[in-house]
Amino acid sequence: MTAIAESRTLSSEELEARLRAVGEERYHHRHPFHLLMHEGKLTRGQLQAWALNRYYYQSRIPIKDSLLLARSDDAAFRLAWRKRLVDHDGESGRGGGIARWLLLAEATGLDRDRVQSCREVLPAVRYAVDAYLDLVTRKSLLEAVASSLTELFSGRLIALRLDALRRHYPWLAKGLDYFEARLSQAPEDAQFALAWVRENARSRAEQELAIAALRTKCDILWAQLDALYFAYVQPGWPPPGAFRPQEP
Amino acid sequence: MTAIAESRTLSSEELEARLRAVGEERYHHRHPFHLLMHEGKLTRGQLQAWALNRYYYQSRIPIKDSLLLARSDDAAFRLAWRKRLVDHDGESGRGGGIARWLLLAEATGLDRDRVQSCREVLPAVRYAVDAYLDLVTRKSLLEAVASSLTELFSGRLIALRLDALRRHYPWLAKGLDYFEARLSQAPEDAQFALAWVRENARSRAEQELAIAALRTKCDILWAQLDALYFAYVQPGWPPPGAFRPQEP
Repeated sequence: MTAIAESRTLSSEELEARLRAVGEERYHHRHPFHLLMHEGKLTRGQLQAWALNRYYYQSRIPIKDSLLLARSDDAAFRLAWRKRLVDHDGESGRGGGIARWLLLAEATGLDRDRVQSCREVLPAVRYAVDAYLDLVTRKSLLEAVASSLTELFSGRLIALRLDALRRHYPWLAKGLDYFEARLSQAPEDAQFALAWVRENARSRAEQELAIAALRTKCDILWAQLDALYFAYVQPGWPPPGAFRPQEP
Repeated sequence: MTAIAESRTLSSEELEARLRAVGEERYHHRHPFHLLMHEGKLTRGQLQAWALNRYYYQSRIPIKDSLLLARSDDAAFRLAWRKRLVDHDGESGRGGGIARWLLLAEATGLDRDRVQSCREVLPAVRYAVDAYLDLVTRKSLLEAVASSLTELFSGRLIALRLDALRRHYPWLAKGLDYFEARLSQAPEDAQFALAWVRENARSRAEQELAIAALRTKCDILWAQLDALYFAYVQPGWPPPGAFRPQEP
């Protein structure tokens, strides 16, 4: 690509195509841990490790969204984004995504207190998730919003996963409400964020920052599964103090 | 341990013994990547991956020390700590630890610009190193200083490594100045930091925070080697965009 082509502002269709290409290349639907999961090849212990570690990610999502809310001075934007807090934290008397994730963890056979304590989370998972909070805190609001666009790609992955989990791990069935809910929540959120990025990434430099932020977010998701795969699937090792499945 | 024993303040000898026990259990001298290195079982490509990734850590050390300096209002403390900036950044006309690390990377056959760009660093290594900067920024000064105490354990590891690298990878010989210099720098720094922690961790609660910070730092070092091992030693995979050795 020449320097001239680099600096030409993309049409919003071109920008969307570039963003979607990032997902095709880097979203964690391609990660071998997910491939094993969907082929029914994970043990209960490995699914426990997944549920326990990903709980840390889930538990940080409303914190991420609160940090992001705090950065906008546009009440209409904040109102739209606030839906995500409701999705994840729930409303009085009705649990949200975090509560549903705990049901999933319980369905794998883990005690809820143990999961909520986050004491046995892999350090590498913790660092990756914290890098997400850092991105949302320190980068531009545009980059923070663009990093959420992995939700553009989650619908297809979740539909596939729901089917695979029901088929291969029937004992998980009562823990799948989280994914059911995400099937409708994520596309709405993603459409809002995509429209906002298309509108607000005005120069080519801003467009490239948005694309790079989405790439970074894909790295963050990918790194969590790398850590899980290498500690619990390959003959690797959880670091001292991390979760060890009783049934390997 | 009973609640009463938990709350008894440790003598400074007991505190030092607890800190040293953390190193025995968790310092990365036990990590399988280092064991392979010292047995001469790493390929040149794997040593390149190590030098390139650890450069990111090295390059962040003076930033870490600057953040830490900024947190103390004690000029005598800052004066002592400032030595670390000289160790790593050098002085005008004389390179420091970072320059010496680049010589090591060059001795593995890598181009210095490629290493300095940090473009191919594993995301998981980046997150772990950034977690160290975060610790030094957000936790108490006591915890920040205590986290540096991994240097208490580095002397023995470096002596062993220098011997092993010379024996098994003679083509690396001209890149070993970094470790030669650390043999005298690290113990001085560690003794100052240890004395400071012994003096400034006055309550049992503070002592436990110092011990926990050292444990966290060991996790940060360990996680970097996990990422390297799993991407480059086991039949794992570097994530999209990370360094791929030409000679595997």
